[in-house]
Amino acid sequence: MTVTDEYLANNARYAATFKGPLPLPPSKHVAVLACMDARLDVYRILGLKEGEAHVIRNAGGVVTDDAIRSLAISQRLLGTREIILIHHTDCGMLTFTDDEFKGAIQQETGLKPPWAAEAFPDLEEDVRQSLRRIEASPFVTKHESLRGFIFDVATGKLNEVTL
Amino acid sequence: MTVTDEYLANNARYAATFKGPLPLPPSKHVAVLACMDARLDVYRILGLKEGEAHVIRNAGGVVTDDAIRSLAISQRLLGTREIILIHHTDCGMLTFTDDEFKGAIQQETGLKPPWAAEAFPDLEEDVRQSLRRIEASPFVTKHESLRGFIFDVATGKLNEVTL
Repeated sequence: MTVTDEYLANNARYAATFKGPLPLPPSKHVAVLACMDARLDVYRILGLKEGEAHVIRNAGGVVTDDAIRSLAISQRLLGTREIILIHHTDCGMLTFTDDEFKGAIQQETGLKPPWAAEAFPDLEEDVRQSLRRIEASPFVTKHESLRGFIFDVATGKLNEVTL
Repeated sequence: MTVTDEYLANNARYAATFKGPLPLPPSKHVAVLACMDARLDVYRILGLKEGEAHVIRNAGGVVTDDAIRSLAISQRLLGTREIILIHHTDCGMLTFTDDEFKGAIQQETGLKPPWAAEAFPDLEEDVRQSLRRIEASPFVTKHESLRGFIFDVATGKLNEVTL
């Protein structure tokens, strides 16, 4: 039995009391971009209720082209108007460099990944880098609010980072 | 006052009873890739507890290069060994085509996005496309379990799609 099987048993319990369906467009017009880190239960951290906000997540919570794609769809097709960025303390992305990671893959597989690993040595600076990447994008322009935070995995608190 | 401000007030309440910190590597060795849709509270749908699983999300839950980047980091640096893919009924990605979306952006901004929008006309077929893209990746090879599901936004149930 895999962990996936355990989670499917959990899902059967979830579905037993499920109330749906809700409308497709996010009712609070918010998009969140956060790190994939297992400790970040984004709905609980922000008190999101189902149907309120898009939640985009990747390794680092980095503003990659794919995050821009998701935000562009979120804003242009589904009407979101606020963006919340969430990085966090004790992030795995602080523990390696792109060269190390890609070199290790190349050594094992013979192939060098064509993408940047997006590791970063400074947490606050990477939140600022993410804010600037959104401001510089010609495709993500519909927001009225754009703010970046560091989630503290020891205290549960969001601390704001400004440009 | 923005919705972001409301969510920050929620976060203060969350932090008041927060117990941390947990370890960085996912304790259940699972990575989930799901759509960003606001109705998908992934932790509740699967019964995930904090610290158990990486959660990667983008528009559509598509296996893009950025999802491959995140999964490669998840497996190679943080030891995950199962992958769960989650698409869902009533998905926004079924409602447009790449040409329409990119054409509209080009018409408004003068710039055509250099990325694929990754819209899809068939839900089950896109889960299969995602499963195949992972199987074809030379960078995501460490999993012992890879399964794909469609979340039903009317019932709360995960229904499996196989190749």
